Amino acid sequence: MMNFEAALQKKIDLINGGLDDYLPMVYPEIINEAARYSIFPGGKRLRPVILLATCKMLGGKTANALPFACALEMIHTYSLIHDDLPAMDNDDLRRGHPTNHMVFGEAMAILAGDALLNRAYEVMAQHCVANPNIHFLKAMSKIADYAGIKGMIGGQVMDIRMENAAATAQELEYIYTNKTSGLLMAAFGGGALAAFADDDTVSTMEDIGKTLGMAFQIKDDLLDISGGETLGKPIGSDQKNQKSTYISLYGVEKAEEMYHQLSASVIESLRRLENSAFLVALAENLIDRTR
Amino acid sequence: MMNFEAALQKKIDLINGGLDDYLPMVYPEIINEAARYSIFPGGKRLRPVILLATCKMLGGKTANALPFACALEMIHTYSLIHDDLPAMDNDDLRRGHPTNHMVFGEAMAILAGDALLNRAYEVMAQHCVANPNIHFLKAMSKIADYAGIKGMIGGQVMDIRMENAAATAQELEYIYTNKTSGLLMAAFGGGALAAFADDDTVSTMEDIGKTLGMAFQIKDDLLDISGGETLGKPIGSDQKNQKSTYISLYGVEKAEEMYHQLSASVIESLRRLENSAFLVALAENLIDRTR
Repeated sequence: MMNFEAALQKKIDLINGGLDDYLPMVYPEIINEAARYSIFPGGKRLRPVILLATCKMLGGKTANALPFACALEMIHTYSLIHDDLPAMDNDDLRRGHPTNHMVFGEAMAILAGDALLNRAYEVMAQHCVANPNIHFLKAMSKIADYAGIKGMIGGQVMDIRMENAAATAQELEYIYTNKTSGLLMAAFGGGALAAFADDDTVSTMEDIGKTLGMAFQIKDDLLDISGGETLGKPIGSDQKNQKSTYISLYGVEKAEEMYHQLSASVIESLRRLENSAFLVALAENLIDRTR
Repeated sequence: MMNFEAALQKKIDLINGGLDDYLPMVYPEIINEAARYSIFPGGKRLRPVILLATCKMLGGKTANALPFACALEMIHTYSLIHDDLPAMDNDDLRRGHPTNHMVFGEAMAILAGDALLNRAYEVMAQHCVANPNIHFLKAMSKIADYAGIKGMIGGQVMDIRMENAAATAQELEYIYTNKTSGLLMAAFGGGALAAFADDDTVSTMEDIGKTLGMAFQIKDDLLDISGGETLGKPIGSDQKNQKSTYISLYGVEKAEEMYHQLSASVIESLRRLENSAFLVALAENLIDRTR
């Protein structure tokens, strides 16, 4: 395998190229400008990278996976734009830059989010029309399900309901599983379907996504108290906002133990698969992150 | 043909039944409550009724069209919820009832809109997975296109940009064609595709939708000055908001003339088609409306 960093960058470049193609500066330009402002330059592109890598690991073609990867990133980005709005988390900054509504105003930010969500489905539907195949249809359907009330939106709803209120362990697990794991499960499952994988393989990959999402979220909780800037939020903001976290519920030690257990499980599950070197390296990279 | 009013009510009942099924009260209930608040009791259900009627006129099965019809109504409803938000039109009332954000708060109203938009694609994608057929895929793709930047969202963007600013004739036509005609074209085109119609027929039906949308919008402008409550907005609100309309651009007489010409064209085009009695009656009904 090519050096991990080089392989990662190659995937990110492919995704950025795809997003650039899928978001042309057509009339009325302002809405595309607003949508592109939040899409570019972009961060780790974690979800679409996982989708492409899963497809490749299972012997699929990148061209079959790219539309789903880009659609997933558009869905992730719309959720960030709407989450940042004054009525939601009211954030002025994301990744050190002014949030969408700070630059384009609230009305345009709402519409930019709507446009990205809708565009994700335009792109996937066009891909399915051009390549009518049941696996692609299932990939689109799966991504839609994990983005909706039974996935990301459901998690976001409970996250908002639990602000300034103590969440039970069950509620917090629901939020983490849906808000964070949802799109990761869509990434692993969608990538497998783009490679024409069978239902068992799809399900195995989704389980890895679920576990990785939980680990990822607990790591975020740990970083929030230990320093290191994640998701662009200031250190200690969870405690300040009286937000329930795995730390407030279980304490640092137990949270760290859960985190290490979940991480080990992800790595082990990936190692068991053939051609998984890139995904193992990616998972290790995520687990070791200090910010 | 059955009496028009009875046939219309039968279609509305089917649509309401479908929407009820597609929006179950699953956890977390609050988001479904918010989504259902704006979906029910609902108004004329114009777009889904047209979709079902077009499918039936062309010999298609209602069961094949219902998921698309309900999805279209969800897309229409999400756009109303987001349009009403304080950052957008800031409306407290719609159809005489408090708007979504007045009841559920802004955060939940944003999420309810997002959830309805996403759910529309969940429903269509599931329908396509269960009945993989290129015509259904094309229907989903078409609805997505007309709902996006090249359709309804594009129209809404320009509508917001033109508030308190004079629009040119070209800009106003763009807004009316996209914001209003967009989903009507999706209704006629989607209904035709659900009936496995060929491209020429789909295109003919879409043209009728485009013309009907323009007529519909000019009628709205005329009703705004003559009285009668449309879209739940108070009489004279366009003038108060200094909004450009076909009346401010062309004057009442010319606007009425354009309206009658467009309406006549819709009726004539529909009459030329076989089995079009219901759609002709529906169009006549819309044209004669006084509110």
